[in-house]
Amino acid sequence: MLNFEFQNPTKIIFGRDQISKIATEIPQGAKVMMLYGGGSIKANGIYEQVTKALEGFEVVEFGGIPANPEYDILLEALRIIKAEKIDFMLAVGGGSVIDGVKFLSAAALFEGAEPWDILKNSIRTFRGLPFGTVLTIPATGSEMNSGAVITRKTTQEKLSMGGPGLFPIFSIIDPQVITSIPKRQLANGITDAFTHVLEQYMTYPTQAFLQDRFAESIMQTLIEIAPRVMDNPADYEAAANFMWSCTMALNGLIQKGVPTDWSVHAIGHELTALFGIDHARTLAVIVPSHYRFNFDAKKEKLAQYGKRVWGLAEGDTDAVAKAAIEKTEAFFHSLEIDTALSAYTDQFEGTAEKIEQRFQERGWLGLGEHKKLAPADVAKIVTMSY
Amino acid sequence: MLNFEFQNPTKIIFGRDQISKIATEIPQGAKVMMLYGGGSIKANGIYEQVTKALEGFEVVEFGGIPANPEYDILLEALRIIKAEKIDFMLAVGGGSVIDGVKFLSAAALFEGAEPWDILKNSIRTFRGLPFGTVLTIPATGSEMNSGAVITRKTTQEKLSMGGPGLFPIFSIIDPQVITSIPKRQLANGITDAFTHVLEQYMTYPTQAFLQDRFAESIMQTLIEIAPRVMDNPADYEAAANFMWSCTMALNGLIQKGVPTDWSVHAIGHELTALFGIDHARTLAVIVPSHYRFNFDAKKEKLAQYGKRVWGLAEGDTDAVAKAAIEKTEAFFHSLEIDTALSAYTDQFEGTAEKIEQRFQERGWLGLGEHKKLAPADVAKIVTMSY
Repeated sequence: MLNFEFQNPTKIIFGRDQISKIATEIPQGAKVMMLYGGGSIKANGIYEQVTKALEGFEVVEFGGIPANPEYDILLEALRIIKAEKIDFMLAVGGGSVIDGVKFLSAAALFEGAEPWDILKNSIRTFRGLPFGTVLTIPATGSEMNSGAVITRKTTQEKLSMGGPGLFPIFSIIDPQVITSIPKRQLANGITDAFTHVLEQYMTYPTQAFLQDRFAESIMQTLIEIAPRVMDNPADYEAAANFMWSCTMALNGLIQKGVPTDWSVHAIGHELTALFGIDHARTLAVIVPSHYRFNFDAKKEKLAQYGKRVWGLAEGDTDAVAKAAIEKTEAFFHSLEIDTALSAYTDQFEGTAEKIEQRFQERGWLGLGEHKKLAPADVAKIVTMSY
Repeated sequence: MLNFEFQNPTKIIFGRDQISKIATEIPQGAKVMMLYGGGSIKANGIYEQVTKALEGFEVVEFGGIPANPEYDILLEALRIIKAEKIDFMLAVGGGSVIDGVKFLSAAALFEGAEPWDILKNSIRTFRGLPFGTVLTIPATGSEMNSGAVITRKTTQEKLSMGGPGLFPIFSIIDPQVITSIPKRQLANGITDAFTHVLEQYMTYPTQAFLQDRFAESIMQTLIEIAPRVMDNPADYEAAANFMWSCTMALNGLIQKGVPTDWSVHAIGHELTALFGIDHARTLAVIVPSHYRFNFDAKKEKLAQYGKRVWGLAEGDTDAVAKAAIEKTEAFFHSLEIDTALSAYTDQFEGTAEKIEQRFQERGWLGLGEHKKLAPADVAKIVTMSY
């Protein structure tokens, strides 16, 4: 087990009809900016629940944060935050809205001239403008971690940021919210959370027995509840396990003391930046070819996963590891998620070269748990995913 | 899944040679009280590491906190804390020392006349004197939770306290510390942590799939590392999994969203108060008879545990559940922990009646996940454990 530090101060308020608790979690007298996305919260009743809970606070609303939160739109919100002297932000949405609010949390107190530098120069945030969240789409785990990914259309960039100052003060998770989510997004959420676990698990055995079992627990739970969630999002028990699994998949716990990979995300982000493919679907495109390309380095762990998570019993390490990749791919397919890039775009030719070049330009340090994957390797993985 | 709130702000610093980090975690200029137990830290080098790390701070030492932290001794420390205007406490020890420091944290800012009222009247602590810990004995999980159990010899009482103000600011967990722990205490630690999980898990199925799997993960890990830890405490990887499992067993996570029992602890505390039996051993005494007495209420969960944790495949629910209790008892025996009260005292006759009477006197609300166990039921369980 590797040395680690772990601290996660976010207060989770989980369960039925908990949105009204906002009122007691936001500091009395705070001037609040309520931020949300494209307006689906106005159709499903969440907007009403939140505005009712915020009665008594001075509230400025900022809607329209898009999927893959866009830098130029966030700059508009930043201008209002400063002009209106906002004390507290409330993100009402999924990972995109919450990530956008994390950027604003950092940018509001950033002393540099150009907030993009936070992303470009990987500046960690130790103190941000405080914020809470009401999670409306389970997937990214952003409601209980301190990281964010921000997109800039003008430069086709999608970069990460974070720091201990960016944990939500509180997050409200009411499993009833998923009843109004389109199936496509439910499938994305399951795939996203599942891949988050894979990125922190599918490396090499390190005798971190407890972390391995926790990671396997989340994947087993997602596999168990996936058909129920897809069949009936009003199945409260399935929804509750889905949402708590998404949160636990990326709140820092399972990555502590173990090597992590994150290549799938690094490559996937490029596919979203190039083609606008849903984040989760880019992960499903890259996972199988990444594990096939790095088979020798990962086969011990793939076999452990195959045995424990998929119950594969037959065959030697190679056979079980190979079958485990096939099971993973089949799981994505069961969610109606395609795992070939060509299913999403007919412009796929040349993508590998384009991504290789971008990675080369960015001061490459190597991807994966050994930091050894070179841009040329990435190109091969992308080609395998066509 | 039940509604829940979860927040745990303790910073964990885990791994080899981390004790020196104390210096950067305690506020600059703080006047520190360093508290410890019987002095074993002076023999195993931890005292030296801690005092070296505290160079530059004004430090008052308070040693001699006994196992089952004793109220009268803690009152001495409290007097010094107030007289010396201590700003920060550092607990260097196991659960007893840390629990004692939690009591002091609460008592230092308590405005009532008699600090015992915190325990007697179950007064929750929302703000305490800040403290950190250096964990020297894995077992209780006190290093990452906000609860404590305090003993008062004069009245033969052992009572619980807690509150969100009693989380350690930081806890340092260096798995190397267990090399100097006597085997008896290692066995106690494994048993204690294992039973903590059982208390939060062995109730009835509630579709909290993720929580169940996390609980099973901790028990599987403890079973896996137990022989390695007992055979060679210098086996770092086994020690690391042991320590992290003990912390995760009682940091609040696995109890969220599920019913919990805690009867075993309630009854076990009485055995310690009456006979001075090691806390963990009282749990091992009560577990088998508690599960046998409440077999019908718990058999579904016992069978799930038997299948997933012990790999029991044969037989119907009743048979697997019954075998699971036997496996648990055999596990304790493998650690050289006796599971009959008569192995610890020849004064056991009359214990059931004594405990029944004590529980009756205390304004009984019922024990267990249904709060239905009556004092007379407890008497039967205790009798079964003779």
